[in-house]
Amino acid sequence: MKFTCTQENLNKALNVVGKIINKNSTLPILNNVLIKTEKGRLKLSSTNLEIGISYLIGGKVESEGEITVPTKLFHNFISNLPIGNVEIKLREDVLSLKCNSYKTSIKGLDAKEYPLTPKLDVKPIFKINSFVFKKALSQIIPAISNSESRVEITGVFMDLSNLNKNTITLVATDSYRLAEIYVNINNENINNDYKNILGNTVSVIMPKETIQELVRNLDDIEDDVEVVISESQILFSFGNANIISRLIEGKYPDYKQIIPTEFKTILQVDKRDIIKATKVTSLFSNIFNNSIELKLLAGSKNLEINSESSDLGSNNTKIAVEIEGNDKNISMSYNYKFLIDGLNSLSGDKVVLKINDDSSPMVLTSDVDKYYKYIIMPTRA
Amino acid sequence: MKFTCTQENLNKALNVVGKIINKNSTLPILNNVLIKTEKGRLKLSSTNLEIGISYLIGGKVESEGEITVPTKLFHNFISNLPIGNVEIKLREDVLSLKCNSYKTSIKGLDAKEYPLTPKLDVKPIFKINSFVFKKALSQIIPAISNSESRVEITGVFMDLSNLNKNTITLVATDSYRLAEIYVNINNENINNDYKNILGNTVSVIMPKETIQELVRNLDDIEDDVEVVISESQILFSFGNANIISRLIEGKYPDYKQIIPTEFKTILQVDKRDIIKATKVTSLFSNIFNNSIELKLLAGSKNLEINSESSDLGSNNTKIAVEIEGNDKNISMSYNYKFLIDGLNSLSGDKVVLKINDDSSPMVLTSDVDKYYKYIIMPTRA
Repeated sequence: MKFTCTQENLNKALNVVGKIINKNSTLPILNNVLIKTEKGRLKLSSTNLEIGISYLIGGKVESEGEITVPTKLFHNFISNLPIGNVEIKLREDVLSLKCNSYKTSIKGLDAKEYPLTPKLDVKPIFKINSFVFKKALSQIIPAISNSESRVEITGVFMDLSNLNKNTITLVATDSYRLAEIYVNINNENINNDYKNILGNTVSVIMPKETIQELVRNLDDIEDDVEVVISESQILFSFGNANIISRLIEGKYPDYKQIIPTEFKTILQVDKRDIIKATKVTSLFSNIFNNSIELKLLAGSKNLEINSESSDLGSNNTKIAVEIEGNDKNISMSYNYKFLIDGLNSLSGDKVVLKINDDSSPMVLTSDVDKYYKYIIMPTRA
Repeated sequence: MKFTCTQENLNKALNVVGKIINKNSTLPILNNVLIKTEKGRLKLSSTNLEIGISYLIGGKVESEGEITVPTKLFHNFISNLPIGNVEIKLREDVLSLKCNSYKTSIKGLDAKEYPLTPKLDVKPIFKINSFVFKKALSQIIPAISNSESRVEITGVFMDLSNLNKNTITLVATDSYRLAEIYVNINNENINNDYKNILGNTVSVIMPKETIQELVRNLDDIEDDVEVVISESQILFSFGNANIISRLIEGKYPDYKQIIPTEFKTILQVDKRDIIKATKVTSLFSNIFNNSIELKLLAGSKNLEINSESSDLGSNNTKIAVEIEGNDKNISMSYNYKFLIDGLNSLSGDKVVLKINDDSSPMVLTSDVDKYYKYIIMPTRA
């Protein structure tokens, strides 16, 4: 192998492929990155057997070849090189690099030992604007469950059954809170043949780590993201990068039933005020369930946010709210962490709190995020 | 106690006094901050028995009093309050606070239980510009030893024997490298009577943690720092803050003898070039002693920075240098971490490397830092 490219492009590639965490300590070659010439370009790939990421670099191929080298070492090395062209040569299992006055040899492991990343030989289902996709996924990521006992909620549920209405639905929940967003897709970006390609698949569950890797890499990307789906895998293509991942098996809970559709009281409140008040109040929250009280007195124009800890002290804060339908006293308890996550996930200066009573979920929305809602279950006080 | 002040001033005070780490878990009250009215102001103090920090806040005292409350809780609470006046009242052991629409109670512990911070009833020795003091201390901090077996080098040595020449000397070493700086003090800032006050004390050793706390708090300070010294303690006063600390007992090593005064070869090199080359080379350094090679060939105008690891690979970098007195080949080995620390501690774009041979210490200086030098011992290759 002999290949020349810029330090900048190599570094970009390693920022994309170099951060997958290898959880499989019995296969140490997964700590390496696969470097391979491919169709006049250099392809860098890494995998932890659940996710595979690859990135293509333009440059000059003088002879073909492939090798794997330790990812962390290679990334540290490239990121510290001066800006300029890097000349890469492979001799047996040693990768030699020259850049300005730097001459370096890195010992590699045979590319034949590296696990193959599966290919998805089906057509894309849709393309989506990377900024829109990133924002939607970022909003719902905090609600994804980490529970190992319920693997089906440890990912983002993507419902494709409304593609005929140019919409996909993305959902995340950990059973204490739930985030749901409808994302619109331009008609011309949907594959006409999507029904045949999808077959029986009307929804998929994408692992949290995959979504986090995707979101991390959609920074500064202006291209659309192309989404390819098979029964057990999903592929995101954008720019020079490909992220392929297994899908989570299992049935996503029938979450629709827990989202209330009618509300007795609707509050509008300044987002920064309620976040600040929640943070201060959280200092005296219930240490067992992180619970704080939201209290509304009939006829009052304030929302009270309260907490009391027998060890530490107490806090009472009143914040101004616009109220629709406040005809009796309501006192509700919520986990402050879930409340802050939900408030932070909303765009705009104002947030809307839709409530019924102390045993019903509260729905958070904002006028800016018309198609997004965050539902939070009450705690028992 | 009844006291009113601004949220901003309370927060500033807690940023100063609220970060001492309590290492003494048998005395849980050290996790609290002492709050006390004093001469029309509010004094916040904290201590871990080695360092004591206090900060005075202006405001309106309506009645006197004192209490201690959990530092972390209080700091989190105050920092999240909105900007505005905070009204503080003490009733029995409960501190009540009102700020805008926030009403809070925090349970305290009796101030009588809090350890007394010793007072230093001697006159100051000198005053020093806070920016100059901060810069000098920051430069030498990385060289302070963490060794528990040689407690006398776990602090900064301050030599006062040249105060008659308007100079103090600050030194730090961990026996592998040593940093020394002369700091000039204006004559009018030195107490005429300093000899009588100091008595037999011609130098002190100040604990690393004290110096780190001092440096951290000299950010944004425009006042001079007043230095008060007794046999076993030191006090730094600046702005509204006081830091008092025990001194380290013991005899500081006679470090002067290891600093070479004559050099066979003097190199001048671009600081960023040599730091970058050292970082890249460090990736293949000796895993036992972090050693890399600096190599100079007779007559060459380049400094070579090399490393070779049997497991990982090797690196060779040449950087341009200006050389005085290069008449034979020299190969020296240094710990790359100590080299990078030293290079980073120097100001200016160029650094000067003064060398003799492979078994002598190297001295790093810069034309910008005339009174500062960093000495690094060679490693055995």
